[in-house]
Amino acid sequence: MNIIDIIDKKRNKEELTKEEYEFAFSGFLKKEVKDYQMSSLLMAICINGMSDQEVFDLTDIFIKSGEVLDLSGVEGVKVDKHSTGGVGDKTTLIIAPIVASLGIKVPKMSGRGLGLTGGTIDKLESIPGFKVALTKEELIKELNEIGMVICSQTDSLVPLDKAVYALRDVTGTVNSIPLIAVSIMSKKIASGADKILIDIKCGDGALIKDERSAKELKDLMIRIGNVYEKEVRCLVSDMNVPLGVCVGNALEVAEAVELLDGKVRNNLYDLCVDIASNMVSMGKNISIIDARDEVIEAINNKKALEKFYQFVTYQGGRIDDMTISENKMEIKSTKKGLITDINALIVSKVSNSLGSGRSTIEDVIDHGVGVFLNKQIGDTVNVGDTLCTLYYNQVDNNFNITEAFTIEEQEEKKETN
Amino acid sequence: MNIIDIIDKKRNKEELTKEEYEFAFSGFLKKEVKDYQMSSLLMAICINGMSDQEVFDLTDIFIKSGEVLDLSGVEGVKVDKHSTGGVGDKTTLIIAPIVASLGIKVPKMSGRGLGLTGGTIDKLESIPGFKVALTKEELIKELNEIGMVICSQTDSLVPLDKAVYALRDVTGTVNSIPLIAVSIMSKKIASGADKILIDIKCGDGALIKDERSAKELKDLMIRIGNVYEKEVRCLVSDMNVPLGVCVGNALEVAEAVELLDGKVRNNLYDLCVDIASNMVSMGKNISIIDARDEVIEAINNKKALEKFYQFVTYQGGRIDDMTISENKMEIKSTKKGLITDINALIVSKVSNSLGSGRSTIEDVIDHGVGVFLNKQIGDTVNVGDTLCTLYYNQVDNNFNITEAFTIEEQEEKKETN
Repeated sequence: MNIIDIIDKKRNKEELTKEEYEFAFSGFLKKEVKDYQMSSLLMAICINGMSDQEVFDLTDIFIKSGEVLDLSGVEGVKVDKHSTGGVGDKTTLIIAPIVASLGIKVPKMSGRGLGLTGGTIDKLESIPGFKVALTKEELIKELNEIGMVICSQTDSLVPLDKAVYALRDVTGTVNSIPLIAVSIMSKKIASGADKILIDIKCGDGALIKDERSAKELKDLMIRIGNVYEKEVRCLVSDMNVPLGVCVGNALEVAEAVELLDGKVRNNLYDLCVDIASNMVSMGKNISIIDARDEVIEAINNKKALEKFYQFVTYQGGRIDDMTISENKMEIKSTKKGLITDINALIVSKVSNSLGSGRSTIEDVIDHGVGVFLNKQIGDTVNVGDTLCTLYYNQVDNNFNITEAFTIEEQEEKKETN
Repeated sequence: MNIIDIIDKKRNKEELTKEEYEFAFSGFLKKEVKDYQMSSLLMAICINGMSDQEVFDLTDIFIKSGEVLDLSGVEGVKVDKHSTGGVGDKTTLIIAPIVASLGIKVPKMSGRGLGLTGGTIDKLESIPGFKVALTKEELIKELNEIGMVICSQTDSLVPLDKAVYALRDVTGTVNSIPLIAVSIMSKKIASGADKILIDIKCGDGALIKDERSAKELKDLMIRIGNVYEKEVRCLVSDMNVPLGVCVGNALEVAEAVELLDGKVRNNLYDLCVDIASNMVSMGKNISIIDARDEVIEAINNKKALEKFYQFVTYQGGRIDDMTISENKMEIKSTKKGLITDINALIVSKVSNSLGSGRSTIEDVIDHGVGVFLNKQIGDTVNVGDTLCTLYYNQVDNNFNITEAFTIEEQEEKKETN
């Protein structure tokens, strides 16, 4: 067996055997297959696709490249959640305590942000003292004691995904439904939960651009789940507009607390209720309608908020010490009219340029900065109204956040003669 | 402009602009674009193809990556020749003196062999004293004085092709008609001839596997030639069987001399007459039938042979000192029957294992070894007849050359009762 023959086969649209995938991908992890050979194979996969059997085989190779978390020591049903990444997406911080407060175990390993999407782990590090790196034993203990955990993903889990993703990122081979499915599902299965909810972000700014691709990804991930006897449900949610009104780490934690305190009703609230209801429905084997009632009640009776505080304290966080930058700049509207769109990508770029995100893996995050949206889609504004507020420490003038807002100027009513 | 967007475009089957090709390929030569990015782009090109305009643009970028040979100091029409590589292909050694003896200038830069196909330069180095590396001035002087030259290709000519080819070779991206056309035509155009004859090898063992691909490559190279106002003609020739009866460097030079001496009539003779006739037809603007008469006459009246000796001597070679190994091993047939096929690839592998070729660029060639085919397709053999003769210095027993011969056993004639 040699790598050139394997690449040739995939270039010629032929199906590869599990042994061939093993040779190519495990060889890549061992550096026997070169990165320039792997990127060539990845591009052939991107264009020519993979059969279901190939996807199952590769998922298995990914899973077995590292450790598989054994959660058999945790009592009850374990339900995990994954999102394909969105601007202002703090749903994990909200749904995990809701679901855990209803008696379902939520073992959630999260990543750090890179590029335009933030990472849950970065958000949690806005809280002074919060410990994101846990041992396997700590994770299991916390799940048994308080029913939830959010920690950073260990390097021992699916190392092949890390290596392959780093290469895909710089070789134009990210956009492949089968490769995305393999990447997500291998990590979720290795993380040890029984049931998995996946929130597929769909839109111009997302990895998945259209409904058809979202459906394809969804169906494929459910079929992978079947192979491992894991129930998988997928939601498809819009990622063209920011989720909620805050973008930036500490700002987003504060918004999560507000929501759990019953003070928020917007697109973020709707999405969190959807995700949590599906997780509870799976976890308790009840209808989505019944699950929804329980979820809303957990917010209204503050049980979810209590669970959140319990979780933060358990992992060493002092939420009262969390700070948001005191430097504020209000951005005023120069137009009068109706806000018809807020571009999530632009808001994300501005927030990142303030220091809330990373361009490279080495960048240090400023947790206290970000963007607060004073106006939302559907609001009318007058000239001089505040569109949004920037929280900053150092000002970078290379952006114009007003471009994020599409304001349709409303015609003055004409007198009829 | 960034390389990921360029790769994305080609993955999505969009046409790239010349600026984008320049960014990607010149960036690769400057090592600003990484090899793993270039291989990903090359695979996208292999699968999604290139428009004619893209091929013209990339050919131009290839040519301009290095020096372009200026042959305006050479009088008369300059006709060059290229072959896509075959086993036992010594046609250059034969057609160059034929064509030059008929008053047409033949400036031929050749390569060394790697893998299964030999290189003309290696064959010439079988001749003691023969100098393959010439300066531009020496090349022009020789062309003016004796009408032909065969020398090694300089590094300054199309360096981009060398860099890209080395990567294609190890990333399964060799098989692309547009990339093959760009590679061949950029080198031929940079070599400065007015007219170009290309011998496309077609068959299982060749880069080009079928007639349809051969026609596609042929038409594309003619269109590239049009852009540079260079007349291009292509022949498509079979490469499933060895050309002639000798494989191995000195053996092939000896066979070329035999042919020019009028003593050979086989598939090698037919191909050489075809190639030379087309070159003479282009060079003199005469019909192929008239050109053919001149070519055959040049062999018959030994003018071509004289030109060959003149050329060898001019470049310092002492043909009488050339040696072929004295160790011979005759391989006998164990079957009785009709030879219906001789597998060129197997013959080539055996010859290489004797020392006539290179597996890696560092290998040293043994010029005196090789294979002589005592029997050819269409011959009948008896058990014990010599199929072929191996000329060797060290014996490697890891081959079985009899496998190269397909012998259909003929039934004994049955008496009818």
